[in-house]
Amino acid sequence: MNKVAIAVHGGVGDTPILSKYIKETEAGLAQAATLGYQMLKKGASAVDVVEAAVKCLEDNPLFNAGRGSALNCAGEVEMDASIMNGANLKAGAVSMVHLVKNPISLARQIMDKTHHVFLSGYGAVEIAKNAGLPLESKSYFITEDQYQIYKKINQIESHQDILKKKMKGTVGAVALDAQGDLAAATSTGGTSNCLPGRVGDSCVIGGGCYANNQTCAVSGTGDGEYLITGVIAHTISMLTELNIPLQEACDQVVLERNKNCEGIIGVISVNPSGDIGISFNTSVMRRAWMSSDDNLQVKIY
Amino acid sequence: MNKVAIAVHGGVGDTPILSKYIKETEAGLAQAATLGYQMLKKGASAVDVVEAAVKCLEDNPLFNAGRGSALNCAGEVEMDASIMNGANLKAGAVSMVHLVKNPISLARQIMDKTHHVFLSGYGAVEIAKNAGLPLESKSYFITEDQYQIYKKINQIESHQDILKKKMKGTVGAVALDAQGDLAAATSTGGTSNCLPGRVGDSCVIGGGCYANNQTCAVSGTGDGEYLITGVIAHTISMLTELNIPLQEACDQVVLERNKNCEGIIGVISVNPSGDIGISFNTSVMRRAWMSSDDNLQVKIY
Repeated sequence: MNKVAIAVHGGVGDTPILSKYIKETEAGLAQAATLGYQMLKKGASAVDVVEAAVKCLEDNPLFNAGRGSALNCAGEVEMDASIMNGANLKAGAVSMVHLVKNPISLARQIMDKTHHVFLSGYGAVEIAKNAGLPLESKSYFITEDQYQIYKKINQIESHQDILKKKMKGTVGAVALDAQGDLAAATSTGGTSNCLPGRVGDSCVIGGGCYANNQTCAVSGTGDGEYLITGVIAHTISMLTELNIPLQEACDQVVLERNKNCEGIIGVISVNPSGDIGISFNTSVMRRAWMSSDDNLQVKIY
Repeated sequence: MNKVAIAVHGGVGDTPILSKYIKETEAGLAQAATLGYQMLKKGASAVDVVEAAVKCLEDNPLFNAGRGSALNCAGEVEMDASIMNGANLKAGAVSMVHLVKNPISLARQIMDKTHHVFLSGYGAVEIAKNAGLPLESKSYFITEDQYQIYKKINQIESHQDILKKKMKGTVGAVALDAQGDLAAATSTGGTSNCLPGRVGDSCVIGGGCYANNQTCAVSGTGDGEYLITGVIAHTISMLTELNIPLQEACDQVVLERNKNCEGIIGVISVNPSGDIGISFNTSVMRRAWMSSDDNLQVKIY
């Protein structure tokens, strides 16, 4: 059997994770990576695998995507997600989605069943309804922890503070399947107390998500604004075209090309040889990976 | 004085323009390019110039952006736009915007006055209201021509047809100013009878808009889905990093790398030497350019 590989992330951060959450966070990452790896071993496609791994993280209330999404300054959950198939360069993306249990599956639906790439707001939610994707009440998405964070920040942040916020908190997955195909998926619940309508990199193809069988698959996380303007995922892909090894390309983009960027950035990636590249410019990146070459690895710092 | 240069476009197409509109279309392109060139000669910044040129095209009812936007299948106008400053790699983008007379100025406002890059829907419109940008009634944006196109298509297209639609019709500008700075701007009213919430490349940094003083500024148009998944504007920028001449990079991306793409694509670009690169894979691209080296050129075919 050809090599297979998966990597997942649960976002970067610049503050330590509360010790009470470390074990659960590691378990959540391990669960998503193991689920994906088992599917890959059974011959599942990379696209199916990244969707399943991201769904697993969306369903886990510890991560800021799907259930457990951050609340914007209007106290609402608005989610973004995207998926890309490296085999045919098709992609699907959604922004400002609510009620849809798994935004990544809605992005998949748009990729597979329409000629669109990117849908936003109620138009996207209509597609989910028509496709019979699971919907949940508003309260399903809001965890006690996210509500408390929102409540605290909402009381102290001024409108000017909100205008200066950057986007953080994402989940993502990249995979190489036994057919040699690559895929990437990214999903987010946004930033606590952010402006309604704020869109991050998670739905921007080339920024926070990119996959191309000729190069690599990348999922990004961090301050979304810098991932968008740096076109981070696509830059890594273009560098690997020049035969720069994957890990070196990730480091070059995150640590060199964007070294003057004031925000935090993290990426996971995989190439057709099954190499995994991970790079981040901050103290915390929740991540796990597993491949034909590597047993399960789970790391936070 | 250093070289200055501007190029503008009013979208690509695969059907000839009605002869009654050719003169007006040419005049509209010439007006935007001339306005931008005169500003550049007076020392205006590239960012001010691309914003002004795109505003000029948004205000012209002949082009599908601002006034004259296409109507979606719900009979509504939803506009996308983005702007990027090559000097500091800052960008602003909006999607699903209504009522705002000049979406490009809202994108500029987001770039200049917030730490965000990308805002969508009512959150974006709130920023416009707070900034005092001109708003117009819904009827302002709807021209008789666009209404007739919508009415005709809306009666014959099935839901399945709508799911298969691709995004077309854009305006854009790129400029090099006398300080050696580059900027790009792109704006669209979307596609006639498209799904509500449909987002094209015009607000996707890297897809339909990119600027970097180290490489070039690019504005794209055509079937937005292919501009997004091909990360067209950023690919051209990355190729010029390899010292590929600008026109060759544009041709390589539009005609070679994406030769199997089923859609139409067009790009305009400028680099720090004042070279202008224009490439498109279809019969019509409304375009004009003017530089220290070139008198005003206006072309449609």
